[in-house]
Amino acid sequence: MAPHFTPEIQASIDAVRQDVAALHAELVRYGLVVWTGGNVSGRVPGADLFVIKPSGVSYDDLAAGNMILCDLDGTVIPGTPGSDRSPSSDTAAHAYVYRNMPDVGGVVHTHSTYAVAWAARGEEIPCVITAMADEFGGPIPIGPFAIIGDDSIGRGIVETLSGHRSRAVLMQNHGPFTIGTSAKDAVKAAVMVEDVARTVHFAREAGPLIPIPQEAIDRLYDRYQNVYGQSGDERR
Amino acid sequence: MAPHFTPEIQASIDAVRQDVAALHAELVRYGLVVWTGGNVSGRVPGADLFVIKPSGVSYDDLAAGNMILCDLDGTVIPGTPGSDRSPSSDTAAHAYVYRNMPDVGGVVHTHSTYAVAWAARGEEIPCVITAMADEFGGPIPIGPFAIIGDDSIGRGIVETLSGHRSRAVLMQNHGPFTIGTSAKDAVKAAVMVEDVARTVHFAREAGPLIPIPQEAIDRLYDRYQNVYGQSGDERR
Amino acid sequence: MAPHFTPEIQASIDAVRQDVAALHAELVRYGLVVWTGGNVSGRVPGADLFVIKPSGVSYDDLAAGNMILCDLDGTVIPGTPGSDRSPSSDTAAHAYVYRNMPDVGGVVHTHSTYAVAWAARGEEIPCVITAMADEFGGPIPIGPFAIIGDDSIGRGIVETLSGHRSRAVLMQNHGPFTIGTSAKDAVKAAVMVEDVARTVHFAREAGPLIPIPQEAIDRLYDRYQNVYGQSGDERR
Amino acid sequence: MAPHFTPEIQASIDAVRQDVAALHAELVRYGLVVWTGGNVSGRVPGADLFVIKPSGVSYDDLAAGNMILCDLDGTVIPGTPGSDRSPSSDTAAHAYVYRNMPDVGGVVHTHSTYAVAWAARGEEIPCVITAMADEFGGPIPIGPFAIIGDDSIGRGIVETLSGHRSRAVLMQNHGPFTIGTSAKDAVKAAVMVEDVARTVHFAREAGPLIPIPQEAIDRLYDRYQNVYGQSGDERR
Repeated sequence: MAPHFTPEIQASIDAVRQDVAALHAELVRYGLVVWTGGNVSGRVPGADLFVIKPSGVSYDDLAAGNMILCDLDGTVIPGTPGSDRSPSSDTAAHAYVYRNMPDVGGVVHTHSTYAVAWAARGEEIPCVITAMADEFGGPIPIGPFAIIGDDSIGRGIVETLSGHRSRAVLMQNHGPFTIGTSAKDAVKAAVMVEDVARTVHFAREAGPLIPIPQEAIDRLYDRYQNVYGQSGDERR
Repeated sequence: MAPHFTPEIQASIDAVRQDVAALHAELVRYGLVVWTGGNVSGRVPGADLFVIKPSGVSYDDLAAGNMILCDLDGTVIPGTPGSDRSPSSDTAAHAYVYRNMPDVGGVVHTHSTYAVAWAARGEEIPCVITAMADEFGGPIPIGPFAIIGDDSIGRGIVETLSGHRSRAVLMQNHGPFTIGTSAKDAVKAAVMVEDVARTVHFAREAGPLIPIPQEAIDRLYDRYQNVYGQSGDERR
Repeated sequence: MAPHFTPEIQASIDAVRQDVAALHAELVRYGLVVWTGGNVSGRVPGADLFVIKPSGVSYDDLAAGNMILCDLDGTVIPGTPGSDRSPSSDTAAHAYVYRNMPDVGGVVHTHSTYAVAWAARGEEIPCVITAMADEFGGPIPIGPFAIIGDDSIGRGIVETLSGHRSRAVLMQNHGPFTIGTSAKDAVKAAVMVEDVARTVHFAREAGPLIPIPQEAIDRLYDRYQNVYGQSGDERR
Repeated sequence: MAPHFTPEIQASIDAVRQDVAALHAELVRYGLVVWTGGNVSGRVPGADLFVIKPSGVSYDDLAAGNMILCDLDGTVIPGTPGSDRSPSSDTAAHAYVYRNMPDVGGVVHTHSTYAVAWAARGEEIPCVITAMADEFGGPIPIGPFAIIGDDSIGRGIVETLSGHRSRAVLMQNHGPFTIGTSAKDAVKAAVMVEDVARTVHFAREAGPLIPIPQEAIDRLYDRYQNVYGQSGDERR
C-alpha cells in the first residue's frame, strides 16, 4: 500500500532524497563523523514529510533510494523506497524540530570532535572570530542534557535555538545539532560549528582571547546574512 | 601436507580472509595506524582457527590470500595460503583471547595516537559523552604493563575485559586492544575508542567535565546494544 | 560591451585565470579552508587588473572561466567571463593591496585554524624555527581589528606588511592574509603560515621555547630568498 | 661528458632513483611535509654516490629521472639525468652523513609538526611507549643548533647518532633528520618519529607519564630489531 503523491510532491521527495544522500559525503569530507555516526535530514517542501538516513548503515551505501521518508511524527511512510529499514535513531529529534520550527528545512547531527569537547564541559563557544560572527551572529549555545527515548532531545534543541541567531546547539555531553533553511544549509552549519569549535579551542588554550565588540558582531552578522554569496542562491 | 577442511569450514575461512584483509583498510581510513603497524584478526566460525595479518607487511599488500590461518595456540597452519610468512608479532595475544573468551569473534590492535596517550599515563578514559555510553557502557579501562614474549599481554586483555562492558582496553604504555562479535565489530570498537580518546582529551584539556549519571549511562548502553541499527545486522 | 584587450594582455589574463582557479585546490589540499571560505587572487602583469574567486561558490566549481576580472578599485569588468557573478566579499581588501603595493602579484586570505587561533589572541607568532626564519625572516605580525565594509582591512594589511619581511599578517580576530610575487607565491605563504602557526602552537604548549639569535635569522632569511630553489623559478 | 658506470652500478643507480622518487610520496601520505619541503636520499650500493631530490620542486613532479646523483662531497655528477637542476639545499648534510657513517644507506629530513615542536624547545622525547622502545630503543635525542652554510648540520647529526640506538635526531629549532639501512628504512624512521612525537606530546599534556623500565626497553628493542617482520626483508 504505497502512498500516492502528486507529481510535484513526488519530484520534491526525489530531489530531497538526492540531496540528503549526497550531503552525507560532506560530513565525511570534513571529518565530522566516524563509522555510521551522524545524520542529515531534509524537509520535503510543500508536504508534512522529511527524508532521513537509515540507522547504522555505512556511509559507502548511502544512495538516494536508501534514504527513508517519514512524516512529521517520525513515522516511516510504508511502501516507499528504504521503508524496510529503520530510520536514524535520532529521527524523533529531527521530527520534533520540523513540527515545531516551520522555517527549518534541514537538520544535521554529528559527534564532531571539538564541538563534542565543548559539550562535555557544558560550555558555550564564545564569539571571538569574525567568521563565527558572520555565520552564527554570536556564541554557540549549550542545550540541556537529554537522552534518547522521548522528545527531550528535540525539545532541548527547539527551546535553545528558538529566537537565537545561532543555527547550532551543543547538546550537553552529547554533541551538535544544526538547523538550516535546507539540508545543505544545515550541513554548512555543522561544518562551520566544528571549525569554530576547533579554532576557539586552540586559541583559548594558549592565552586570553580578545572579545569582539557586540556592535561589530551585529554588523558582521547582518552583512553576511544579507549580502554574501551569489544572488539567486539560498540565503546562506 | 595442506590440511583438508570440510567445504563449510573452507567457505568460512575464505570469508574471514576476505573480511580481515578488507578491514585493515578501515584502520588506514580512520588514521589509526602508520606504516605496517596495527593488526586485525577474525575467528573462523565453527572451527578452532583464526585469520590474522602477516607481520611487517605494507597495508597496500593486504590481499585475502596474504592473510595467515592459525590455530588457537597461534601456530600457523602449514600448507595454507600465506603460511610461508610470519604472522603478526601480536599473534600470541590474539590467540590467548580466542582461547579464553569464546564469544569473541574478532580482535584488533593499534597504536592510535590518543588512545596510546591515555595508556602512557595509565589513565582510564572517563565516560562523559553519550556516544561512549552507547558504545562502551562506561569508562575505557587500563590493562597492565606487559611486554611481548609470553602470554602476559593476552592475559592482561582477558583479565581486564572479562565481565567488563567495554570492548576496548588500553594496555599501559602500549595501546588499545579491542574485541568484538566479529572482526568488523572489533574494528568498529578500535575506531570508536580512538574517537572518544581524542574527544575526551580535548574536552578535559580546557576545563572540568560534566559527569553523566550512572543511570543515564545504563539506559544509553542498554538501548544501543539492543535497538540501534538494522534488524538482521550483527548486534552492534 | 565586453572590453577589448591587446593579445598580450588577454593572454596574461587567461594565464592568471588558470593559475588562480588551480591554486584554490592547494588551499583544499593543505586543509586551509572549509566550505566556500578562503580566496586567492592574482594581478594581471602589465595591466591594472586582477583575477579573483567568485563569492560563496563551491571549491568543486572553480574553473578558470568562473574567476572574475576586476580593476584595481575592485570593480568587476563587465562583459568578461564570470562577470555575472559577485566577486569574493574580500575583493575590496585585495584591491587595496594591489593599488598600494605595486610589487605584490598575488593575495590570499584563509581562516586556517592555527593562524586564526593566534589572531584571536592578537599575538604575533615568534620566530623559533628555522623554516620560519627562511620563509618569513622573523615573527608573523598581527594587523588591526577591522571589519568588512570600507578600506580598513586593506589598509591594515598594507600598513602592517609595508617594510616588513613577513609576507603574512594575522588580522586580529579574523585570520591570515598573505602576499607574494605571484598568486602561487602568496598561496605558498598561506600554506607556510598555517604550518608555522600550528608547529609553534604545539611547541609552546609544552614548555619554554629556545629563541633563534637574530643574526642567525638574518642569515637564514638572506640565503633562502637568494639561493633556494631552481634558477629560473620565481624567487621563492 | 656523461660518466660511464659499470652495468651493475648503473642498475643500482636506477633502482635507487626509483626508490627515492617513490618514497617522497610516503612523506606526503603521512603528512610530514608541506609544499616542497622535506627530502629523501639513498646511497648507491657499491659506489661512492647517493641520489637526492632536487631543490624546491613540487612533490607532484618527483619522477625518478628528476632525482639528482651526487658524490659523497655532495657534488652533482655532471651529464646524468637531473644534473641540470640544483639538488636539495640539505645535500651537504646528507653527504656528510654518508661520508662519516658507512652503514647508513638512507637519510631523510622533514619539518614534521610535532617533531619540530620538541626541537623548538630543545627537548628530547622520552621513551614512554612500547612502539618507541621497539623502533628507537630509547629517547629521541636533540642535536645542536646549526644552520646551513657549512658542515655543522651534518656534523651535528653524526655526533648525536653515532653509537646511539635512535635512527632519528631532532636538530634544535630545526627538525628531524633520520637515517636507516636504506632510503626506505630512513623514511620509516621519519614516519615513526613524528608518530611518537605527536603521541608523547598529547600524553604528557594531560598529566604525568609512566616511565618504562630500562630493562623492558632493552628487551623490546632487541626483539624488534631481530625478530619482527618477514625473514628476507631488510632488518627493520
